[in-house]
Amino acid sequence: MAKRYGLLLSSLLFLASQVAGQENPLPSWNDGPAKAAIVEFIKVTTDKSHPRYVPPEQRIATFDQDGTLWVEHPIYTQVIYCLDRVPYLVKEKPELKDKEPFKTVMSGDREAIAKLPLKELEEILAATLTGMSVDDFQAEVKKWLATAKHPRYDRLYTELTYQPMLEVQKFFRANGYKTYIVTGGGQDFVRVYAEQVYGIPPEQVVGTMGGTKYGHDKDGKPFLTKEPKLLLNDNNAGKVEGIHLMIGRRPYAAFGNSPGDQQMLEYTTAGDGARLGMLVLHDDAKREYAYGPAQGLPDTKIGAFTQALHDDAKKRGWVVISIKDDWKRLFSFEK
Amino acid sequence: MAKRYGLLLSSLLFLASQVAGQENPLPSWNDGPAKAAIVEFIKVTTDKSHPRYVPPEQRIATFDQDGTLWVEHPIYTQVIYCLDRVPYLVKEKPELKDKEPFKTVMSGDREAIAKLPLKELEEILAATLTGMSVDDFQAEVKKWLATAKHPRYDRLYTELTYQPMLEVQKFFRANGYKTYIVTGGGQDFVRVYAEQVYGIPPEQVVGTMGGTKYGHDKDGKPFLTKEPKLLLNDNNAGKVEGIHLMIGRRPYAAFGNSPGDQQMLEYTTAGDGARLGMLVLHDDAKREYAYGPAQGLPDTKIGAFTQALHDDAKKRGWVVISIKDDWKRLFSFEK
Repeated sequence: MAKRYGLLLSSLLFLASQVAGQENPLPSWNDGPAKAAIVEFIKVTTDKSHPRYVPPEQRIATFDQDGTLWVEHPIYTQVIYCLDRVPYLVKEKPELKDKEPFKTVMSGDREAIAKLPLKELEEILAATLTGMSVDDFQAEVKKWLATAKHPRYDRLYTELTYQPMLEVQKFFRANGYKTYIVTGGGQDFVRVYAEQVYGIPPEQVVGTMGGTKYGHDKDGKPFLTKEPKLLLNDNNAGKVEGIHLMIGRRPYAAFGNSPGDQQMLEYTTAGDGARLGMLVLHDDAKREYAYGPAQGLPDTKIGAFTQALHDDAKKRGWVVISIKDDWKRLFSFEK
Repeated sequence: MAKRYGLLLSSLLFLASQVAGQENPLPSWNDGPAKAAIVEFIKVTTDKSHPRYVPPEQRIATFDQDGTLWVEHPIYTQVIYCLDRVPYLVKEKPELKDKEPFKTVMSGDREAIAKLPLKELEEILAATLTGMSVDDFQAEVKKWLATAKHPRYDRLYTELTYQPMLEVQKFFRANGYKTYIVTGGGQDFVRVYAEQVYGIPPEQVVGTMGGTKYGHDKDGKPFLTKEPKLLLNDNNAGKVEGIHLMIGRRPYAAFGNSPGDQQMLEYTTAGDGARLGMLVLHDDAKREYAYGPAQGLPDTKIGAFTQALHDDAKKRGWVVISIKDDWKRLFSFEK
């Protein structure tokens, strides 16, 4: 009988831990309107008796990545990857050494690099993200992610994902939602680590898409080459077009942080029933970065939270997440 | 106590029915090498102790649609839809009435329509598949599918899915596989009915992809318009490129029936470990259609099983499914 009671006790403890998990699925969030909006949305859309109930097969939630799921300052992680790849590229093609914009990147002059015009930056992106096989690209990104570190935190970039947002994604998935990343970053780049870092499989990563070309190596083995052909720029209106292309239905919840996410939130929250639009505001210079220019925060070229976006959020009922006020803990390595 | 035994009995019956379901997951298949190959593949890839075990997150199976999942003769269903749309198009744009190829379609002369060159057929497809909102398109397709009937069977096109293949898809899903349609047909077209007919959600339909454009109606409500811009022709090498774009990993099993599926099967079966490639051969003129030209069957413009594909199947170990020999029952409405 002792054994029986032992089993009963462990069952009760298990149940208790489950209920506890349900009671506080967002431990890194402070109580406040942002947390309440998330909890309420999940409660309403998964309650069969509620008029705003959403059937499981329609539960889609989309998340921007840079500035929403991980740190995007001082510059997008993928851009650093591309700059770091330039020396390897020059080694393979020495004729690039004296050619702009590669010459500037090779000089190591940070100020000059930061001033490169968009067109020249795009040239670097195309040269370092295309022209190789998909397999080689994945191996290169993996290798880089294993060692490259963020200048401020001295941590791997994949460690700089926001713990509160990882909790939101898990909370959504635990309630039957399919979670998607919808990013302006390269779809193939983000897919390399999305499963390990976010628990999101490659087929649920929607990003800026380039063409590939099917071919065979000298032994007749088939492989795909990344072509310098843009299929879809997954920013602004492109995010909605990317969602239609890759998912084929309107999300019920969307998370972003910059004007590049405006259309995704607009499209999502224009649907019938319960819809959730949320925007991360970077207002915590102490623990992370502070940039607006909304709310009087400093302006930025990377992920600006404009006044127009702020006004739009107010008008359409999107909830602003204040990093300073709403997030108890930013990263999993804290404490 | 009687009640208790009743519960026990019903539990046992339930378990028995489950085991029976596992014992014969493919009731519409005759015993033979094709059925055996499917059962063996599932057994091996889901057995943790087997060296060819495949972890659940990697279990991807892809299915061509026309000629693999449903009837494609005498002509692809989507082409009939487009031809049927022409009168509506001419009503909206009367200037098309005297313009080729619309004039020929409006004449109703079946022979002349069948002889339209590919370029003119493509003009009809573009005119009837683009230029409207995504919502309007979905509504039009839905309406058409509810009434249009196949000339030979006098059945809705969605009833002409092959019961044995529906069983294969269910069997794969019951064993943790994500099933995808990878079709040369329009992605948006197939998505309208894939969930209801195949149990495959829109995000798991990979097809020929067109661009869309985000905009707003006069009340400011956002919507997407289908643009006459081809993003990817999901045929031949395009099927592999489409798989990479939409799924991001190599399938473990692929099913097709024509040279348009060659690269998908080649790419799938070139991967490590257990891989399955299967091709449906239409050799049953009595119950369906018979076309080759492999195995001396009549040649066709629609889904030809060429001698080259036949030789390739032999060389690479792809299993040919004979409709005549392997399928006990073709459609769910039989018997």
